[in-house]
Amino acid sequence: MLGAVFKMKFKVKLSKINTGKPSLIINPKDCEKVGLHPKDVAYIIASGSKKTCATVIVSDNIEEGYIELTEHVKRALKISELPEFVEVLPAGPSASLPLIKAKLYGKKLTRHEIKTIVKEIVERRLGDAEISMLCAALMVNGMDLEEVRNLSLSIAELGEIIEWPFGPIYDVHSIGGVPGNKTALLTVPIVASFGVKIPKTSSRAITSPAGTADVMETLAPVALKPEEIVEIVTKVNAVLAWGGSLNLAPADDIIIEVERVLSVDPEPILLASIMSKKIAMGINKLLIDMPTGTEAKIEKIEDAETLATRFIELGKLLEIQTKVAITYGGQPIGRNVGPALEAYEALETLMKGKGSGSLVHKATSLAGIILEEAGIAPHGQGKAFAMEALKSGKAYEKMKEIISAQGGDPNIKPEDLPIGDYREIFTSQTSGYVTYISNRAIASIARVAGAPADKGAGVRLYVKAGENVKPGDPLFEIYAESEEKLSEALIVARRNWPIRVEGMLLKTLG
Amino acid sequence: MLGAVFKMKFKVKLSKINTGKPSLIINPKDCEKVGLHPKDVAYIIASGSKKTCATVIVSDNIEEGYIELTEHVKRALKISELPEFVEVLPAGPSASLPLIKAKLYGKKLTRHEIKTIVKEIVERRLGDAEISMLCAALMVNGMDLEEVRNLSLSIAELGEIIEWPFGPIYDVHSIGGVPGNKTALLTVPIVASFGVKIPKTSSRAITSPAGTADVMETLAPVALKPEEIVEIVTKVNAVLAWGGSLNLAPADDIIIEVERVLSVDPEPILLASIMSKKIAMGINKLLIDMPTGTEAKIEKIEDAETLATRFIELGKLLEIQTKVAITYGGQPIGRNVGPALEAYEALETLMKGKGSGSLVHKATSLAGIILEEAGIAPHGQGKAFAMEALKSGKAYEKMKEIISAQGGDPNIKPEDLPIGDYREIFTSQTSGYVTYISNRAIASIARVAGAPADKGAGVRLYVKAGENVKPGDPLFEIYAESEEKLSEALIVARRNWPIRVEGMLLKTLG
Repeated sequence: MLGAVFKMKFKVKLSKINTGKPSLIINPKDCEKVGLHPKDVAYIIASGSKKTCATVIVSDNIEEGYIELTEHVKRALKISELPEFVEVLPAGPSASLPLIKAKLYGKKLTRHEIKTIVKEIVERRLGDAEISMLCAALMVNGMDLEEVRNLSLSIAELGEIIEWPFGPIYDVHSIGGVPGNKTALLTVPIVASFGVKIPKTSSRAITSPAGTADVMETLAPVALKPEEIVEIVTKVNAVLAWGGSLNLAPADDIIIEVERVLSVDPEPILLASIMSKKIAMGINKLLIDMPTGTEAKIEKIEDAETLATRFIELGKLLEIQTKVAITYGGQPIGRNVGPALEAYEALETLMKGKGSGSLVHKATSLAGIILEEAGIAPHGQGKAFAMEALKSGKAYEKMKEIISAQGGDPNIKPEDLPIGDYREIFTSQTSGYVTYISNRAIASIARVAGAPADKGAGVRLYVKAGENVKPGDPLFEIYAESEEKLSEALIVARRNWPIRVEGMLLKTLG
Repeated sequence: MLGAVFKMKFKVKLSKINTGKPSLIINPKDCEKVGLHPKDVAYIIASGSKKTCATVIVSDNIEEGYIELTEHVKRALKISELPEFVEVLPAGPSASLPLIKAKLYGKKLTRHEIKTIVKEIVERRLGDAEISMLCAALMVNGMDLEEVRNLSLSIAELGEIIEWPFGPIYDVHSIGGVPGNKTALLTVPIVASFGVKIPKTSSRAITSPAGTADVMETLAPVALKPEEIVEIVTKVNAVLAWGGSLNLAPADDIIIEVERVLSVDPEPILLASIMSKKIAMGINKLLIDMPTGTEAKIEKIEDAETLATRFIELGKLLEIQTKVAITYGGQPIGRNVGPALEAYEALETLMKGKGSGSLVHKATSLAGIILEEAGIAPHGQGKAFAMEALKSGKAYEKMKEIISAQGGDPNIKPEDLPIGDYREIFTSQTSGYVTYISNRAIASIARVAGAPADKGAGVRLYVKAGENVKPGDPLFEIYAESEEKLSEALIVARRNWPIRVEGMLLKTLG
């Protein structure tokens, strides 16, 4: 029961507004002619194969016959310059909406049905409401492994796929959630120094103070093209790149935006989100790091085990041999949190061949698993091999090659990194033991201090859980790039105190 | 783990763009200062109690220190002029999102919890994603009667409520879905002519060719203020007004927008949507018309009975005495479809005291139920009383009073109504019986011809189901206000033929 629907041609301008999604701005008269209303979804057809949906905004400021398109339309069309003309067509009924409703009522979806849904997500045909209903359907009914496999494949196939002239291709992936986790900056050069091919892509921070891509970016450019990644890995075995510039699994990025609004992460999407990117990157052997502990993404070891089993079984169906390392995530990894501060710690550890116990122990353990898997280290000796590569400087030399291949300065020193000039140290007022360091409080302080946008902002820990402190001993230091942000961070630190120091006697009862 | 959050004051301008929802347009630097991103939700605080949320759009065209607000912000703030300054504050976590998730997992919601959700809907704190998840939760788990009662009350209480200095107050409400249903234009004056107080509010068409408000608007103004409604009903017992201008149950309008995108209508919302408006209108005795039949909203009589039982029980909890009339909805009501065409038919029927069988029979049956309920007609004689009022011209006199009280011309004649000048008659090519008239096809033709925006557009039926036709007999006529829309409607009519004519012998087998 819709009114008449017309396809019309418009002259295109780039809009100056940013709505955070593909939008088109149109004159009210043209809008009515095409049969659209504000907030409707319409197809923008640039040429035969180049089309995307956009949300309608109406404005008297637009001339008739013209249409303004936002930057996000350009991105969705995957073009660097907007064409002179586009056709606009009301979107009509969604093919995937009935499938999403069927899933909500418990139906198992076929591969073709899943692909239909993912295609409409990538085309931006589905808005927040439809994607939210998909999340709800998956929260209520989940997906069996076959469905998750098809979801992973569909998400991968509708984006860029990297092909390798050699193999096997390794990857190490952390599911995240613990601040200070710069581990990949050690693990990757260690295993690459033994000849393992490891094209590591990672994300920028979304809700954390620093993603691996943010940290690496302070050492070298990370926004690489697919062909550059293949070239660099061919030359130096490894890369530490930002996944976001590769257009891998674009559906995933769109779903994640809605998940953030809803603060949900249904397991099928969590699994497919990671595995689709591994398919797109052509990974054959995958090691997943699953930090587990208080205030980590996963708090209980049993939950980690259940999820690990799902990853391993899914890996089998996708022909990606998958191992999972459940690691301790109850406090920050290493001592520095924030992009430049984490790069500082990683680089210093690589140069000296030693560093914070939790960082070195975790990085060499993960590297050891890969070295054994690759048949480079005998069973049970992987960690020792990794430690030797770190201590001998072999891993540092490899890191210099990686930095150089990505276009950075291989001779960069930790002190060259832009650490924030506005600082404040907090000291202990009592003596006792550090019984607890809050992941959430540390992350929150670092974020308010400016991380990850301000590369030099963050937190440095002078103590870790279990250590003994006396009154006046430094506990942690906040770094910021402006006076204003430092003082905001101080307020958050005082309100949300991150470190607990207690005597050995915690409580007397009775 | 959010960054710093600031409240900032901005000088206000009215935006020229229409996004179909409350939006704010802000300079990128200011946006960052407040801690916002495009697509985020922020509170706009106009004064202590006047606040609403709006979606963030970023534009270089806005000066720093200024903010542009869309027309929908003004509406949400319920103010006629935007203030000179407003404060802007990132929305922070939603209080109702955890409750919506709990409902998705089957939790029963308390009255307070339901009110929290409805409050955030009215404040526009919840976007499409959150409201969609609420719909999904209600589709999967439903609500028990106590929850629906609390939902109805919460929706009503967060909008305008009308109070009456007298009672009881009656209402007749059709759940809709059948084209040509101008019945209220007869039922209301009939019962009002006996002294029944009946302040009938109705909606404009959303997906149909004409809502009762669209039809009545061709006879008199329908956008009345609450105090005007009380005044008119005091004087003439009845009103036929548009509910949309009254700010009754504003949450409902917002939810309905998302339901349209998803093409869903979960039962708890269907029930609460109707009952909340009855609470807001101060209705004591309600008659619900439930058209049932092929291509009506409800197709099976058993489904109608189940829903009717829910309405009746809910009515008890809300102290609104509710009766339900299940009526035949398998073809259009009367012969005219479209705003002016329906007003024409209703007015002519009132003036002549007779008209299309289905219209007269339905209107007098519904009126009869109310007259018996009100103790005006003895049991079993309501319909006869109603018919007498129609035939005698008593109902027409009352309709003239209503039109006049609403500010229309009481002496308006059917031929004064602006029926579209572009017309086309379709005739039968065979002889036989009309076995089927498609509600959907008729509605679709009328919409494409321009209804409801073009008041004179629509369809006139020359036959109804069961009638005998010969070749060359007229079947239906399309009316439009422009050549272009008429020809579009012709295409739809040919592709989507609305009337089936068959011989008595339908099929020979074997």
